[in-house]
Amino acid sequence: MKIKNIGGEFGLIGRIKSKINLYSNDVVAGIGDDAAVLRYDNKNYLLFTTDMLVENVHFSLKYYSPQQIGMKAIEQNSSDIAAMGGIPKFAIVSLALPNDIDVEFVDKLYNGINKKSKKYKISIVGGNITRSKEIAVSIAMLGFVEKKYLALRSGAKINDLVFCSGDVGKSAVGLELLKNSKNGHSIKNHLEPECRLDLAGKLVKAGINSMIDVSDGVASEVRHICEESGVGAVIYADKIPMSKNTIIDAKKLHKNPLDFALYGGEDFELIFTANKNRLNKLKKHKVTVIGRIVGKKYGIKLIKNNKKYNLKIGFDHFKRLRV
Amino acid sequence: MKIKNIGGEFGLIGRIKSKINLYSNDVVAGIGDDAAVLRYDNKNYLLFTTDMLVENVHFSLKYYSPQQIGMKAIEQNSSDIAAMGGIPKFAIVSLALPNDIDVEFVDKLYNGINKKSKKYKISIVGGNITRSKEIAVSIAMLGFVEKKYLALRSGAKINDLVFCSGDVGKSAVGLELLKNSKNGHSIKNHLEPECRLDLAGKLVKAGINSMIDVSDGVASEVRHICEESGVGAVIYADKIPMSKNTIIDAKKLHKNPLDFALYGGEDFELIFTANKNRLNKLKKHKVTVIGRIVGKKYGIKLIKNNKKYNLKIGFDHFKRLRV
Repeated sequence: MKIKNIGGEFGLIGRIKSKINLYSNDVVAGIGDDAAVLRYDNKNYLLFTTDMLVENVHFSLKYYSPQQIGMKAIEQNSSDIAAMGGIPKFAIVSLALPNDIDVEFVDKLYNGINKKSKKYKISIVGGNITRSKEIAVSIAMLGFVEKKYLALRSGAKINDLVFCSGDVGKSAVGLELLKNSKNGHSIKNHLEPECRLDLAGKLVKAGINSMIDVSDGVASEVRHICEESGVGAVIYADKIPMSKNTIIDAKKLHKNPLDFALYGGEDFELIFTANKNRLNKLKKHKVTVIGRIVGKKYGIKLIKNNKKYNLKIGFDHFKRLRV
Repeated sequence: MKIKNIGGEFGLIGRIKSKINLYSNDVVAGIGDDAAVLRYDNKNYLLFTTDMLVENVHFSLKYYSPQQIGMKAIEQNSSDIAAMGGIPKFAIVSLALPNDIDVEFVDKLYNGINKKSKKYKISIVGGNITRSKEIAVSIAMLGFVEKKYLALRSGAKINDLVFCSGDVGKSAVGLELLKNSKNGHSIKNHLEPECRLDLAGKLVKAGINSMIDVSDGVASEVRHICEESGVGAVIYADKIPMSKNTIIDAKKLHKNPLDFALYGGEDFELIFTANKNRLNKLKKHKVTVIGRIVGKKYGIKLIKNNKKYNLKIGFDHFKRLRV
């Protein structure tokens, strides 16, 4: 039986979760969020996450410099910590590299890792290098979040507004430009994405109920929040924030920019929900209301051209599959 | 320039370490040990490690069941925590899997992970699954060690005795049997290695100065201790503990069992050093004195048939390369 036959990633998450035992009372949140949440001290929780970039799945050396791979690996993991409302602190780097790799490649990869570690004040405290056919960069990261600011996927409440930070679809359309040998501003969004660590810190202080980062597209992230919170959602297609560049670049490809936003991912923006009484506080930041949370029985719907559709989770759901 | 041109793994570790900045005062030990050591509370340090198993490098599906891969991944990481004198507590599982993998494969892999997590009371608190050509299992693990029991690679002192736990060479000779389609008891040692978590806890209480686990062979581990401690060592070939089965199985292969012990690895036994006044306390456990620590200027020597050789680090040093 293939993964798609059990409902794709969402089926697999439930399956793995049901078989796991916890042997500690210090697990506040385990499988099913952007990072694990562990008891730490009176004021803070410890956050623990990992993410892997695999050659020819998440990046190709045709497009990426080794620095950009290193940079993206740190941004991707920092984004997981940001989505919990936390601050990244320590990381370990696990590299899988072909046997004949040049030392210069490793140097440049670490230049990228070090550049972003400096930006976020993350200490690289270890790692290992393994031989492999294709390059893989797996980073494990620790961070901290003040207990009162912890944001989980599971906190969404009925009647919450659903928000999206910044613009989405920009990374996926950039990748499509690269694949089609076309130029455009979105290419940089794909090769050098930046997570929203600063913004996430402001959002949790303004008071939100749930949050997730955009790793796999808005559709997938909204579904994660709904699954973990036991709610449904209505998302308005015409509210999803996209930059002019994303729209221009999608046009070059004769594609609908909305598809990149809903199903593309790797924007490392934030999807979050909050009570509408927080709207004025939240509006100070560049965030957009894209929908609202409804009862579970209503499902997860997309309103597009005044028609209601079931919000699917996209075509590439086994690219990266967070459990 | 290739990695071998800068002195292999040991050159690369120094190179990476020299470029890393730390942005925290809470790092007690970073790159260069089995796990990172981070300040936690008055009594304990937090340990943080990661290790990856890659298909056709660390395992082949010709020999390994999915359960055994999962089991080995937990043992391997637990061994890193054990080598610090600590206890593993939390783990995150990062899987890279071919697109057409069966759900049953994932189930069985997790059966192995869960079996060993139960044994050691490790809580699996998250992870992710990524597409890839070949299977990779990357685990990141957290553990704790009482401050007074912390064992580092860097603690070896001149005149320390060098010890080895259990028997070594057993995993590597088992792999060689499999590759040559021969039978033997060592095969199980290769497919289902067990780390020495209990023993490590007893050793740190008995009072040792440095410790490392046998991931890459006795030669490589002794060199790690010497490099990190700024000392040399003399190792006696005829003292290196090998089981009868290892010797029998090496004979079947017309190979010298000592080569498997020195250069094979994945035994997950412990190499450690201690003052000779600890000898009586340590002898209660099944440990063997294999050499002694000398000044750095004497280098790292192997005494074999009354002749002195430089102890090389083996032929497969870019199989897994811990930094």
